[in-house]
Amino acid sequence: MPTDLLRATRAHTLALAAPLSDEDAQLQSMPDASPAKWHLAHTTWFFETLVLAPHLRGYRLFDERWPPLFNSYYESLGPRHARPQRGLLSRPSLAEVKAYRQHVDAALADLLPTADAATLALIELGCHHEQQHQELLLTDILHAFSCNPLLPAYEASPPAPVQPAAQAWLRHEGGIADIGHGGPGFAFDNEGPRHPALLAPFEISNRLVTCGDFADFIEAGGYREPLLWLSDGWALVQAQGWQRPAYWLDDGRVFGLHGARAMDPNAPVMQLSFYEACAFAEWAGARLPTEFEWEAACGLPGFAQAADQAWQWTRSSYEPYPGFKTAAGAVGEYNGKFMVGQQVLRGGSLATPAGHARPSYRNFFPPAARWQFSGVRLAR
Amino acid sequence: MPTDLLRATRAHTLALAAPLSDEDAQLQSMPDASPAKWHLAHTTWFFETLVLAPHLRGYRLFDERWPPLFNSYYESLGPRHARPQRGLLSRPSLAEVKAYRQHVDAALADLLPTADAATLALIELGCHHEQQHQELLLTDILHAFSCNPLLPAYEASPPAPVQPAAQAWLRHEGGIADIGHGGPGFAFDNEGPRHPALLAPFEISNRLVTCGDFADFIEAGGYREPLLWLSDGWALVQAQGWQRPAYWLDDGRVFGLHGARAMDPNAPVMQLSFYEACAFAEWAGARLPTEFEWEAACGLPGFAQAADQAWQWTRSSYEPYPGFKTAAGAVGEYNGKFMVGQQVLRGGSLATPAGHARPSYRNFFPPAARWQFSGVRLAR
Amino acid sequence: MPTDLLRATRAHTLALAAPLSDEDAQLQSMPDASPAKWHLAHTTWFFETLVLAPHLRGYRLFDERWPPLFNSYYESLGPRHARPQRGLLSRPSLAEVKAYRQHVDAALADLLPTADAATLALIELGCHHEQQHQELLLTDILHAFSCNPLLPAYEASPPAPVQPAAQAWLRHEGGIADIGHGGPGFAFDNEGPRHPALLAPFEISNRLVTCGDFADFIEAGGYREPLLWLSDGWALVQAQGWQRPAYWLDDGRVFGLHGARAMDPNAPVMQLSFYEACAFAEWAGARLPTEFEWEAACGLPGFAQAADQAWQWTRSSYEPYPGFKTAAGAVGEYNGKFMVGQQVLRGGSLATPAGHARPSYRNFFPPAARWQFSGVRLAR
Amino acid sequence: MPTDLLRATRAHTLALAAPLSDEDAQLQSMPDASPAKWHLAHTTWFFETLVLAPHLRGYRLFDERWPPLFNSYYESLGPRHARPQRGLLSRPSLAEVKAYRQHVDAALADLLPTADAATLALIELGCHHEQQHQELLLTDILHAFSCNPLLPAYEASPPAPVQPAAQAWLRHEGGIADIGHGGPGFAFDNEGPRHPALLAPFEISNRLVTCGDFADFIEAGGYREPLLWLSDGWALVQAQGWQRPAYWLDDGRVFGLHGARAMDPNAPVMQLSFYEACAFAEWAGARLPTEFEWEAACGLPGFAQAADQAWQWTRSSYEPYPGFKTAAGAVGEYNGKFMVGQQVLRGGSLATPAGHARPSYRNFFPPAARWQFSGVRLAR
Ligand SMILES: [Fe+3]
Ligand SMILES: [Fe+3]
Ligand SMILES: [Fe+3]
Ligand SMILES: [Fe+3]
Repeated sequence: MPTDLLRATRAHTLALAAPLSDEDAQLQSMPDASPAKWHLAHTTWFFETLVLAPHLRGYRLFDERWPPLFNSYYESLGPRHARPQRGLLSRPSLAEVKAYRQHVDAALADLLPTADAATLALIELGCHHEQQHQELLLTDILHAFSCNPLLPAYEASPPAPVQPAAQAWLRHEGGIADIGHGGPGFAFDNEGPRHPALLAPFEISNRLVTCGDFADFIEAGGYREPLLWLSDGWALVQAQGWQRPAYWLDDGRVFGLHGARAMDPNAPVMQLSFYEACAFAEWAGARLPTEFEWEAACGLPGFAQAADQAWQWTRSSYEPYPGFKTAAGAVGEYNGKFMVGQQVLRGGSLATPAGHARPSYRNFFPPAARWQFSGVRLAR
Repeated sequence: MPTDLLRATRAHTLALAAPLSDEDAQLQSMPDASPAKWHLAHTTWFFETLVLAPHLRGYRLFDERWPPLFNSYYESLGPRHARPQRGLLSRPSLAEVKAYRQHVDAALADLLPTADAATLALIELGCHHEQQHQELLLTDILHAFSCNPLLPAYEASPPAPVQPAAQAWLRHEGGIADIGHGGPGFAFDNEGPRHPALLAPFEISNRLVTCGDFADFIEAGGYREPLLWLSDGWALVQAQGWQRPAYWLDDGRVFGLHGARAMDPNAPVMQLSFYEACAFAEWAGARLPTEFEWEAACGLPGFAQAADQAWQWTRSSYEPYPGFKTAAGAVGEYNGKFMVGQQVLRGGSLATPAGHARPSYRNFFPPAARWQFSGVRLAR
Repeated sequence: MPTDLLRATRAHTLALAAPLSDEDAQLQSMPDASPAKWHLAHTTWFFETLVLAPHLRGYRLFDERWPPLFNSYYESLGPRHARPQRGLLSRPSLAEVKAYRQHVDAALADLLPTADAATLALIELGCHHEQQHQELLLTDILHAFSCNPLLPAYEASPPAPVQPAAQAWLRHEGGIADIGHGGPGFAFDNEGPRHPALLAPFEISNRLVTCGDFADFIEAGGYREPLLWLSDGWALVQAQGWQRPAYWLDDGRVFGLHGARAMDPNAPVMQLSFYEACAFAEWAGARLPTEFEWEAACGLPGFAQAADQAWQWTRSSYEPYPGFKTAAGAVGEYNGKFMVGQQVLRGGSLATPAGHARPSYRNFFPPAARWQFSGVRLAR
Repeated sequence: MPTDLLRATRAHTLALAAPLSDEDAQLQSMPDASPAKWHLAHTTWFFETLVLAPHLRGYRLFDERWPPLFNSYYESLGPRHARPQRGLLSRPSLAEVKAYRQHVDAALADLLPTADAATLALIELGCHHEQQHQELLLTDILHAFSCNPLLPAYEASPPAPVQPAAQAWLRHEGGIADIGHGGPGFAFDNEGPRHPALLAPFEISNRLVTCGDFADFIEAGGYREPLLWLSDGWALVQAQGWQRPAYWLDDGRVFGLHGARAMDPNAPVMQLSFYEACAFAEWAGARLPTEFEWEAACGLPGFAQAADQAWQWTRSSYEPYPGFKTAAGAVGEYNGKFMVGQQVLRGGSLATPAGHARPSYRNFFPPAARWQFSGVRLAR
């Protein structure tokens, strides 16, 4: 099974990069985003550093000068090229990075038949790590393309139309819910320990807020009414002149993977910041669900668009679950050290690889982030 | 009772400002801090604007040009002088601001005998609001003095010595705890609604971390070991060259309200950021309590230094309690709009006015704040 | 003569500070400006450090902790309090600084009868230095007051009306002119060496550009036409939203030492940046004179408003004259190290102390400076 | 002749870009630098916009969406893509830009046989403009490569060794010198009007300061002695931690077009800022020449390394010559609007195209610029 997952994952990353030119793959449009080429290399470095170097006897690094270039944030794995400068790495070339991938894939294939359980677990982690970067590869290239006045389309074809159900409130009776990953499959460390949480009764929307809904908010002056906004959000509205979602153009079109297209009122609104999500909810007389409410409710009958359209901001900040401990070694840096100043998103998006998300999955971003496939599901 | 509270509160603010010269009272050492003179005026503006103008027939504003100068952050109460420029208001003078206080005090005395319950509640809110600013007046002047190479002392006398009990762990069995303000007395809106929370069993320290404890952390290289730190915290350690708490001098002394004094190993360590608190806890093999644990445990026998030394960072971000709704009107802006990006502190400090804090009291600051009387109580 | 100059200069500084409260005297509204109290102390420190400490036997520093507080920029005279933090020095108080002045004045009086020529020259330098700070005291308090929405007036009385002559062009035939200080009196080092300069024939205006002239420029769209502006200037127009001179209010009034008053079309326009001066000249079909043209022309018959209204931006950057050498020791830091990135202004202003300026006098500021008494005299 | 110049110039730019991959050609390492691909396109846009569109009947723009992408700073030629975002243009691709060049080259070939004198003059200007960008293409890619830890070499071959003459002072007797372009050939507008300038006698070095000379300055503590530096320069030394020239590595190697190589003590020191040049001169007991001295002296017997190694900072700021007027229309924006805040460099460098520089040529950069082929020739 790790073999299949590994092969499929590695192939899918390449497939995602296939529409990109060498020049596209180099783009870094802001410090928080990374070039596609870097994603291709970093996910490979992860396997090389955490799996091959310690566990494949006789493994030789593909290039001894590269690890600092592709170490993202692991203090325990040595020095790192400055994140805002990833777009300045014209060398190694995209072709060299692809050769790096082949070299590592071949070594992993050598290792797999004799790998022990701990090594297999690391390989599985590497696959899920790479899936995370698959989505980031798309969000990051989309942001980069949004900075080009020519507004290139990642995909030339039109998007699949969305026909959401009529909005309805689903009721949850509250009580004690078991939260966190509990089954036998893979989960990230931040999804545990599984633990009970006490919920008051609540209602949650059966679907995501649509572009049409959000256009009403804009029309009603939502971006001009400070009392709808959290204080930090209103400061950004003023300082950066927000008037609509980041990818909504002033000519009525919306930019996305399929290029700039007429706004589809049925499509879920995306690329919202947490602040915009909260202001909309306030205006709509509702609120965001907590991440615990979301997890408890996501199995309710009628709960649509759970993980296939847009991540859903929650009113929960990203904190350790009771009893959470970071693992020893480098993998301990994977999640725990980011547990402050960010908000949890639940669900999954049209850019999330198939099979990646789970009901217990915790995505997280700073509240000002406006370049993810991030939308809103209301609660009350 | 509001009469007594009002008189005592108003007098105490003046008493706190008494040791300050006109020049001291003007100091603003950073955008997040305010001059003492501004605190004196803003707390008065609060009564004038929310109590007198709407509820005292025939009330005349002391000066029609002043409200924008002393409105802090209320969007619904008109324009505001830019916060970072509060220190540029040499006019009105301190004497004029004191006259403003007398004018408003006299009008409040006129109003009190005939005030209805709603108005009395606003006056009570105004008193608790002013008590909050009493502590801020001290934290802010202390920061300003810390920027003067002469290191002036707010109080010439030495501080009272602290003799803490030996460190011990207090056990709480967990279960469902009622959280939030429930009694008849005053509380801020963010302390409610009272609601049950489910806690796992935990232990909490009987006392605060001392300066001696923290010196051990420094000695052990705590400020040089990235794996102890949250990622955002480590970035600040590096960018700002943190090597010790903000008010610890490099000659072994510690700066405080009593000036620069030899570090007292028994005194609680203060003026810590949340990041430093977390790194210390990690190094100590412990963690910070959640705000729910703190509230559930603060009545345990042996729980010392609850509210008389330093506020205690918790591992809880500042979020609305289930069912929280902001009030209509300007008072709705008091707390709710700040509920993102901040951490809750519990307890109270040596600078908190007597009678101000409660077990359900929620203080909050950004995780990087290093100028409050903020310390650490460990849990595990 | 030094005795009289010293007494008069020291007294005049105090007189300029007399209208200011303790709080006013503490204001620092931007890093480039200094509090009036600091000017009072710094000019005193200059005498103490350069005259008394080395030349008065047995002199005791007024306070050993103060020199770093009041050293402005002399690397050779030890450490310095950070310039942007001068406004945070509530201590020493204004009263203590005045006592410092008396202490130093008394010591200078002791020294004068027996001072040798070199010491007398240093005292004379200290007087001219203090005169420079007299003008800065006014420009800096004016900027600080401009940041207060109450717009306090430094002087309650109205300004003297200005009745300029009709504009006329004065012709200079060019040729070799002697530039720089040549006579026996005092001059700063940057005014020499006196040297010949070759000038082409030119014309220069008999008077300064008036507020009325400048209002025409604004009316004609001068702040919206990029082709009138130097590139760096246009970038500032856009980034900072310049629409009129810095002290012109949007209600038609102009702020100055006498408070906010109706714009006087006859008064010289002031507080212009070099960029605004150049854009106006371009719009008017003229140009700014070089500093050499200005000096050669300032004695022409009809050359009015030479030094009594506003400094006049020139098209000359601040560079060393041929053969200029900085003096050894601290006085060598007085001028030379600033000779890059600034533009020369010639003349003098209504805030320049009587007897301070000369035809060879070189004032200098960065081209973006908008808080000096800086205007325009056209040439062509 | 324009035909030959045009063909040679256009071909040379392509040749300079030949060693670059598509990814290299996209790099923009700072706002002041541009990608090689952008240089290729911008120089083409210049011909298309200023020559073909107005002067070739029936000319069709290659792509109507492109002009804003490749307009550098011409306000009169419409909107412009933000300069710091040039590196985000993965589209158009390098191949498309090369097709753009062919399209414009073909149209220019059509136009040339019938072009009138004014059009030919514009074409000549376009050639000299493109030559300027040829040097910038090299300085900019060199800066970009310097940001890559792999330190790629633009050229694999070693640099030609330099064997400078022994240092000697060449004497100029001063007097009136004719400055500025006077002959029949091409010159930029900023080289005129030709005019007399009066010079005092001076001496100028026969050669440039070498890396060996500069290593002595470093060794003597030049980067740690504030009294050697202009004030703005010393501020940068401290704020940015300067310890050696920007391209000197801390392992004793120097980075350049030929990669990282052992420092050659005979080679001219380059990539110096004006501040470093001045500090070195001060330490050496000399000074920088003015641009007038340089021009008057450059024909003296023995004046070596005039234009083949490094541009030479002068002690002259970039100002209009007497009588300078900007041309009407877009070409008027070419030079004039940059005449403030920059220093003149004279000579030429190893990256300057053959035939491009002249004795009257005025290059200019801000005093902090450290990525040009900029060195020092001393005077005294
Ligand atoms: Fe990663
Ligand atoms: Fe308040
Ligand atoms: Fe001074
Ligand atoms: Fe160009």
